[in-house]
Amino acid sequence: MKFCSECAHPLTVAIPEGDNRPRYVCTHCGTIHYQNPKLVIGSIPVWQREGEFKILLCKRAIEPRYGYWTLPAGFMENEETTEQAAVRETEEEAGANVRLGKLFTLLNVAHVHQVHLFYLAELLDLDFAAGIESLDVRLFAEDEIPWDDLAFPTIRTTLELFFADRARIREGGGDYGFHGGDVTRPMRSADGPAPEQPD
Amino acid sequence: MKFCSECAHPLTVAIPEGDNRPRYVCTHCGTIHYQNPKLVIGSIPVWQREGEFKILLCKRAIEPRYGYWTLPAGFMENEETTEQAAVRETEEEAGANVRLGKLFTLLNVAHVHQVHLFYLAELLDLDFAAGIESLDVRLFAEDEIPWDDLAFPTIRTTLELFFADRARIREGGGDYGFHGGDVTRPMRSADGPAPEQPD
Repeated sequence: MKFCSECAHPLTVAIPEGDNRPRYVCTHCGTIHYQNPKLVIGSIPVWQREGEFKILLCKRAIEPRYGYWTLPAGFMENEETTEQAAVRETEEEAGANVRLGKLFTLLNVAHVHQVHLFYLAELLDLDFAAGIESLDVRLFAEDEIPWDDLAFPTIRTTLELFFADRARIREGGGDYGFHGGDVTRPMRSADGPAPEQPD
Repeated sequence: MKFCSECAHPLTVAIPEGDNRPRYVCTHCGTIHYQNPKLVIGSIPVWQREGEFKILLCKRAIEPRYGYWTLPAGFMENEETTEQAAVRETEEEAGANVRLGKLFTLLNVAHVHQVHLFYLAELLDLDFAAGIESLDVRLFAEDEIPWDDLAFPTIRTTLELFFADRARIREGGGDYGFHGGDVTRPMRSADGPAPEQPD
């Protein structure tokens, strides 16, 4: 951020009066340009029929983490709700029709200025297909999840919590819970890029 | 948003390739300026001692909704977690020391591009005091809550849900739950301004 988006004057970094942290400020028109974390929102699409229990994952067709597997997710847009964002991203990335359930995880990724939310979702049919940002979309049973090829730490954490809750539920205990948590460092593979920002 | 913050060139509104909605784009340097919802995060500070059960509210010293009562809350900053934001805002606006509990509400306010989160919190002592953005900070029992003078719809909704859960708990039922919801229109008083953006 170098120039004021309101008047094109070069920006200065300063602590505004009454504030306590440095901001990009315009000394010409007085605009303060705040920067705040973004919400990344997705779903955990579950296909459950006659003994089958599978999760829908997308293989990323874009950087960062091209070729790695992810839950359908992306940046929340203005004018939509968190639930609408989850449904939209699931449709855009996986062409999948879901009935959204409860919020399952809220994961802070403070070092990249993001908060990730994942909703439980029921996959309604098998008419899914890779969207423009996906190379492939596939259903995975628990023992088929590509744990070593997941795109982001929040995907791994969400899937781990999901299958832990499922194990508890199968032993007779309650329902899926809501889980908060923090991710403090990127997941790096030997030759993969740093996963800074899922799309 | 009129000028590119990277090169100061005037911005155009266009749908970028591979995208499906209009963005502010710079035809000179190619930067796409995305705009996304902001998180507003606060706490529900509860003071509970020897039969007393009270909630801490702040009287706003800033617009919008100057003079109206609110839970301590404000915009989440980069480099912090949602929990850190809740504790910081409670400290800044009410000078209050809290031990944060579970996430209680996630409320979409799509028409102002915000998502509001409120955490349960235990007020640890009575050494609170109005911060620079508050005219007054006070403890309110349930029958003292100034329902007609609350600043924002998400404050009202959060307090209503809180006291409903509390009534259920006092009748012997479980714990405070997590509640999602949407607020679709501003709370307007006869002579008050539209509450577009809590700080």
